[in-house]
Amino acid sequence: MVRINDNFIKLPSSYLFSEVARKVKVFMEAHPEAEVIRMGIGDVTRPLCPIVTDALHKAVDDESRAQSFHGYGPEQGYEFLISRIVECDYRRRGIDIANDEIFISDGAKSDTGNIGDILSTANRVAVTDPVYPVYIDTNVMAGRAGSLMSDGRWSEIEYLPCTAENGFSPDLPSEEPDMIYLCYPNNPTGTTLTRGELAKWVRYCREKGALLLFDAAYEAFIREDDVPHSIYEIEGAKDVAIEFRSFSKTAGFTGIRLGYTVVPKTLLGYGADGEKVSLNQLWRRRQTTKFNGASYLTQRGAEALYSEDGQRQLRETIDYYLGNADIMRKSLLDAGYECVGGVNSPYIWIRTPEGMTSWEFFDYLLEEFHIVGTPGSGFGPSGEGYFRLTAFNTRENTIKAMARLMESNK
Amino acid sequence: MVRINDNFIKLPSSYLFSEVARKVKVFMEAHPEAEVIRMGIGDVTRPLCPIVTDALHKAVDDESRAQSFHGYGPEQGYEFLISRIVECDYRRRGIDIANDEIFISDGAKSDTGNIGDILSTANRVAVTDPVYPVYIDTNVMAGRAGSLMSDGRWSEIEYLPCTAENGFSPDLPSEEPDMIYLCYPNNPTGTTLTRGELAKWVRYCREKGALLLFDAAYEAFIREDDVPHSIYEIEGAKDVAIEFRSFSKTAGFTGIRLGYTVVPKTLLGYGADGEKVSLNQLWRRRQTTKFNGASYLTQRGAEALYSEDGQRQLRETIDYYLGNADIMRKSLLDAGYECVGGVNSPYIWIRTPEGMTSWEFFDYLLEEFHIVGTPGSGFGPSGEGYFRLTAFNTRENTIKAMARLMESNK
Repeated sequence: MVRINDNFIKLPSSYLFSEVARKVKVFMEAHPEAEVIRMGIGDVTRPLCPIVTDALHKAVDDESRAQSFHGYGPEQGYEFLISRIVECDYRRRGIDIANDEIFISDGAKSDTGNIGDILSTANRVAVTDPVYPVYIDTNVMAGRAGSLMSDGRWSEIEYLPCTAENGFSPDLPSEEPDMIYLCYPNNPTGTTLTRGELAKWVRYCREKGALLLFDAAYEAFIREDDVPHSIYEIEGAKDVAIEFRSFSKTAGFTGIRLGYTVVPKTLLGYGADGEKVSLNQLWRRRQTTKFNGASYLTQRGAEALYSEDGQRQLRETIDYYLGNADIMRKSLLDAGYECVGGVNSPYIWIRTPEGMTSWEFFDYLLEEFHIVGTPGSGFGPSGEGYFRLTAFNTRENTIKAMARLMESNK
Repeated sequence: MVRINDNFIKLPSSYLFSEVARKVKVFMEAHPEAEVIRMGIGDVTRPLCPIVTDALHKAVDDESRAQSFHGYGPEQGYEFLISRIVECDYRRRGIDIANDEIFISDGAKSDTGNIGDILSTANRVAVTDPVYPVYIDTNVMAGRAGSLMSDGRWSEIEYLPCTAENGFSPDLPSEEPDMIYLCYPNNPTGTTLTRGELAKWVRYCREKGALLLFDAAYEAFIREDDVPHSIYEIEGAKDVAIEFRSFSKTAGFTGIRLGYTVVPKTLLGYGADGEKVSLNQLWRRRQTTKFNGASYLTQRGAEALYSEDGQRQLRETIDYYLGNADIMRKSLLDAGYECVGGVNSPYIWIRTPEGMTSWEFFDYLLEEFHIVGTPGSGFGPSGEGYFRLTAFNTRENTIKAMARLMESNK
């Protein structure tokens, strides 16, 4: 009799974006004339850079001829892409990462979800709060979360609040977790940590033997000097951190799928008998067994991004979104809102007006200004009283939405 | 202190294809003049069909313009593809599968590997022997395999031998497993099961409450009438079976990645308290949490295959490989070898000559005829004394290789 993984039963239905969609639908049916502007979901809208589409066309042509056809590639990715990543994303920043420490995949969601495969289910987990829900849900599935409590927290997960009160910089854990998820620039708050703050986390992990799971999916949005682009800019990080990177938000690959994960060879976990084991070897074994490589087409597309023209086109796309974010941030501040993010990030994190919950503010923005965002409480208990807007809409819509908000403040 | 998943430590290094590569390298260095023909690895060599590359180019163009840009798609795949699959792969064969029972992914290797996420680690597993190693290795990682014994078997896995002695049709299990993996047309033996034989397995699973994990990756190679293309051609299978499909070997998508998995809504597993749980819902939750959809480009490429022209071009490609297989099968029989497969499959499974092990036969073929194949013992204990050749080389090389064998027999 086949038994299920009972941890799945513990997971409540995913509610956030479906409830947002339901409310928007109801509103639009009642107000068919309203021009609703969506600033909720974190998906890009700009087309792929010309240099990428050229490379994709060329790769399709490769696949159309027997002599240049590529079948199964290496599960961990093609050297032509790995060597560019190592050179451009790491060596140029003074970071020494070897080619066999890079694992190309179909995206950071898969990798942040699957990384738990190689780790004991007995490890204790800490996350920042609010947080990208995948970190929690995948640990629920694996059995590391315990049970869901009435306050919305999981009994075995340590939550590290990030709120205006601590400047959105989480305090070090008190319960000595074994796995710590950090995402910077942060989703959903749009905040960053300085070099000094990240160094504090690396030091903590080194002292406690904890693993730092560092999600740098929004790295390309960083424009300020004191914000590290990689956790490996911090000395000693290669002994404690796995870094997740994504081409989704940076190069607009949300639809064509690509990411990569860095697992340094100096990174060790502990076996049942206390023996030290290379996590690089375990992840290689996981990926070669349960994954068959990312698409050849997408890998060729990503390779093109690392040329001089590619880097310029990439920056233009990001600058477009950052331009939106800048308009949003200034407009919101002008309109009297308290907010963070939007500088090194496509996300703006707004404090809801006094006495208004996240969902009440959602209804207010939708009904008064026809703007759709995401209630902060959907990202965790400490997100209550906050609200996320994303800078991924068009410039025109961004300006239009902000004009509505400003107008209301006159 | 971060602990690893200790099950990973139990897995011996993957040895088969690296040892094949090593031996070939040594031989070629010693005999630089030899023209070695590779019939070992199961990767395709024909380019993508013209209708697919046209669709891929068009999809790249979609991604190059804001108004037709596709970002995140549904994690379970686009309706434009799902509806074609449902119509062409199922309804036309009289099988009633609903759109929300189809889950598009980046490939059958991922899905056959990841399916274990939703199932209890306490389930007992049965596999045919010889077998595609992914079924075993992923269960070792999950902790369902027990320990590796000196005979190459895992203590907690039931092996169902498929040899000439039972006509390569496995007997029903004796240990009442909860999860049973069947792959037909079979990798590595190239054999198939008839409708009647498959019905026996469906009946068994219904009686015992076992889950049938049916890998139909080689479905497109079926040409004989009595061989079902889908497990759901068997009455009652929707209550017991998950079916895995792939575009890799059929449409040459090994490099651009696409597959799909069918999880019928009538399929149930049991929770700890004996409650019945929909596996469709669990798999949906798994995929929406740990996967972000397959590439839009590849999904458009696959859609094109379901047109009339697409089906014709697809058949031409498969016919090419089946033509190779036919030449191989006849040549091998003429040369006095005993073999199966090669009729509804790209694989030929040869019995090694009396007194010769799989690896000895590997050395013999390489040294005498400069042909590379795969030792059957690499696929499991019951593969000893067998050898796999694949029909994925060019027609020219296939004929050349077979001529060498025939010559030797004169």
